[in-house]
Amino acid sequence: MARQGMMKLGMSMRGLGYHPAAWRHPDVPSDGTLRFEHYAHNAKMAEQGLFDMIFFADGIGLRERDEPRGSLARSGYELVEMEPMTLLPALSVLTKHIGLVTTASTTYNEPYHIARKFATLDLISGGRAGWNIVTSWSEAEAKNFNREEHLEYDTRYERAAEFVEVVKGLWDCWEPDAFAYDKEGGLFYHEDRMHLLNHKGKHFQVRGPLNVAGMPQGRPILVQAGASEQGREIAAETADVVYAAADSVQASKAYYDDVKARMAKYGRDPDELKIMPGVRTIVAATRAEAQAKFDRLQELTDPLVGLARVYAALGDLSGFDIDGPVPEPQREAQVRSATERVMKRARDGNLTIRQLYTQIVGGGFYLIGTAADIADGMQEWYEAGACDGFNVLPPYLPGCVDDFVQYITPELQRRGLFRKAYEGATLRENLGLKMPRNRWAAERAAHSKAAE
Amino acid sequence: MARQGMMKLGMSMRGLGYHPAAWRHPDVPSDGTLRFEHYAHNAKMAEQGLFDMIFFADGIGLRERDEPRGSLARSGYELVEMEPMTLLPALSVLTKHIGLVTTASTTYNEPYHIARKFATLDLISGGRAGWNIVTSWSEAEAKNFNREEHLEYDTRYERAAEFVEVVKGLWDCWEPDAFAYDKEGGLFYHEDRMHLLNHKGKHFQVRGPLNVAGMPQGRPILVQAGASEQGREIAAETADVVYAAADSVQASKAYYDDVKARMAKYGRDPDELKIMPGVRTIVAATRAEAQAKFDRLQELTDPLVGLARVYAALGDLSGFDIDGPVPEPQREAQVRSATERVMKRARDGNLTIRQLYTQIVGGGFYLIGTAADIADGMQEWYEAGACDGFNVLPPYLPGCVDDFVQYITPELQRRGLFRKAYEGATLRENLGLKMPRNRWAAERAAHSKAAE
Repeated sequence: MARQGMMKLGMSMRGLGYHPAAWRHPDVPSDGTLRFEHYAHNAKMAEQGLFDMIFFADGIGLRERDEPRGSLARSGYELVEMEPMTLLPALSVLTKHIGLVTTASTTYNEPYHIARKFATLDLISGGRAGWNIVTSWSEAEAKNFNREEHLEYDTRYERAAEFVEVVKGLWDCWEPDAFAYDKEGGLFYHEDRMHLLNHKGKHFQVRGPLNVAGMPQGRPILVQAGASEQGREIAAETADVVYAAADSVQASKAYYDDVKARMAKYGRDPDELKIMPGVRTIVAATRAEAQAKFDRLQELTDPLVGLARVYAALGDLSGFDIDGPVPEPQREAQVRSATERVMKRARDGNLTIRQLYTQIVGGGFYLIGTAADIADGMQEWYEAGACDGFNVLPPYLPGCVDDFVQYITPELQRRGLFRKAYEGATLRENLGLKMPRNRWAAERAAHSKAAE
Repeated sequence: MARQGMMKLGMSMRGLGYHPAAWRHPDVPSDGTLRFEHYAHNAKMAEQGLFDMIFFADGIGLRERDEPRGSLARSGYELVEMEPMTLLPALSVLTKHIGLVTTASTTYNEPYHIARKFATLDLISGGRAGWNIVTSWSEAEAKNFNREEHLEYDTRYERAAEFVEVVKGLWDCWEPDAFAYDKEGGLFYHEDRMHLLNHKGKHFQVRGPLNVAGMPQGRPILVQAGASEQGREIAAETADVVYAAADSVQASKAYYDDVKARMAKYGRDPDELKIMPGVRTIVAATRAEAQAKFDRLQELTDPLVGLARVYAALGDLSGFDIDGPVPEPQREAQVRSATERVMKRARDGNLTIRQLYTQIVGGGFYLIGTAADIADGMQEWYEAGACDGFNVLPPYLPGCVDDFVQYITPELQRRGLFRKAYEGATLRENLGLKMPRNRWAAERAAHSKAAE
């Protein structure tokens, strides 16, 4: 049974790509994350490929630890890069259709700033802004924001929920027809169509109104990555898009069905949420060529960088022969479950240290092969009802976005799985999502109906 | 004695202009502050006029109070507008030379965010970013950020000083030659050229490093508005540009000499700081025409909006005949000094209520006349040593920036007072300011010299 409709696609553009060795790839500009042209090229290419959106993950600090000593200086991964909320407005001027989504943390921001900035991005871009809501989990980030440790999970989620509530409230302060612009009569806005928020909660007190209004999308698109029980529930209640993990078609289908089933109790239709697992693609004219491209990337992984990836689970292995067996973990070292999982993988595969970290570095959901192979994989997931589309995580940039647009996009189009032109003017329209109703305008409409 | 060199010019682009009735002017797009094209036109026009920079003042809330009742809805002034830190990156793409300066509050932000965003803007724009450091004084803003009242003056300044210290420290974390980009050897950066900040102060704890680096200006330009004793001292120590008040040539010269004299004790040359008073210009072919343009703008001031401007000093006068005399203030009403100052003005001028608020609404340093008249005024200030240039505050937009560039810029150029082409590639170069030295690179240089 072939599924109706088209898949949605996002291009995750962080840094030089998602493989830790990307910066050493011969075609990758290793200083690209500090050059605007790098981002501009990738964004324009993604728009040429009719992607629904580009997306920036973000960290407000260097999350990676320098263990074993010296590994950080050899990693070149998520070290220095442009701040995405500053970058996206610039990219909006160079593009016309593609959505512009970035992460912003509810733990280390204030809702008034976030509401203003995303509202402004929505105005500048003509309705293409999206906010990926995260709570920030790392100590490295906490330490840049006056804390020794990051907030506990429950506190972070509680704060996040209130944060989002405040931001949505601020976005609604001005009804869509609030502005009279009546020069003759001297009336700028209708008093009864501006509403103070007067929020007084546990984490925030915000009076409002927001001093921006008139967003083309009503409000920006809300994106989440809800894997936990709590995260699934929040996604079902509020998200427009979910960036999901991808393990197997079966696991993703189960996740997909679960989250969509939760939506009914919030009065939402399943189509009002798009679930997009992350996929890494390496394409070439033949399977062997594609595999060779991937292998070359894997081989570029510096041993110290590889060892840093197993440090948390196994401790410092830099004193061991990396082409020898994985030693039994020192007892005092680590989080037990991670250690056990990694050791199981090493024992089951009879792996050397190098083989182990290479597997981990090259982990995630990869599709490697010809354009037809990759389209087959994507089609299988899509038609199985395991997703509404994909968030593409290019292993290295700009090569993987260029290749996707040149080879994979046409193949998806040929199969009727992907658009041949943008359907709408806004990200919301391209995603096929309804315009949200301003809460006050809705109340007014209900009142006047009741009065009839 | 004619002064050598050229004056510096900034164009302050907030909203629809600096006159509260600007939005009612027939040539002003009253919805302009929500349309990107409005800002884009003004920025491009200012660059055509070779301005050193555009500047956005900013408020994080609606500062004006709705008193007398209904006045806010009739004001159209600083109500809704784009968030400037989101707007400037977009404008940077449409311009090549002009500096991009915006306000950001040290009271309601975190230094890590501010350091990142301005560093990113500097990268995107090729070295044109500037930060106007303010502490935010209004209750309206406090109430959007979890507070009932704004911070006390001393606390705000103490926090601001530490905030700026942290931001500058973050900007220095990576030495300019920190990045090796050595693909062959696998070294991304030189470990000894990245420095944690490890700041632990009264208001902030920030570990660093910043995850952005390589700013073309070394660091963005720092702007302040230091009028108080404390403000003058901070400006003398740290500012690159001061936006100053303008009362009279004499008062401004005294201020100028005072601030510049304070710089020596910080090891700074007077030329390392540019002092730019604000000036409002209305130009036309004849003096009478220019005056008529100004008068027309004044007449567009809505009575309620005018009364709002005297509310803090005199209370609610909306029950009185506005063409009658200004009544004696009710005793319980207001801050005594402001009341006395306003009443003195009313009595001395024998003013009606309407005449009083019209004077106040049209206050500030105006130059009204032909291009020659206005150039005369600017030249007088500049040659008297009362300023290094001006921050132009256009009463309405886009008219006043268009007129400035068309009529006043050529007149200043003809007199040899203003550039005929941009001198440099960065804002720093155009302002004639030195490249700051990274603190760690400077230390390294000092060490290696000592070791010789």
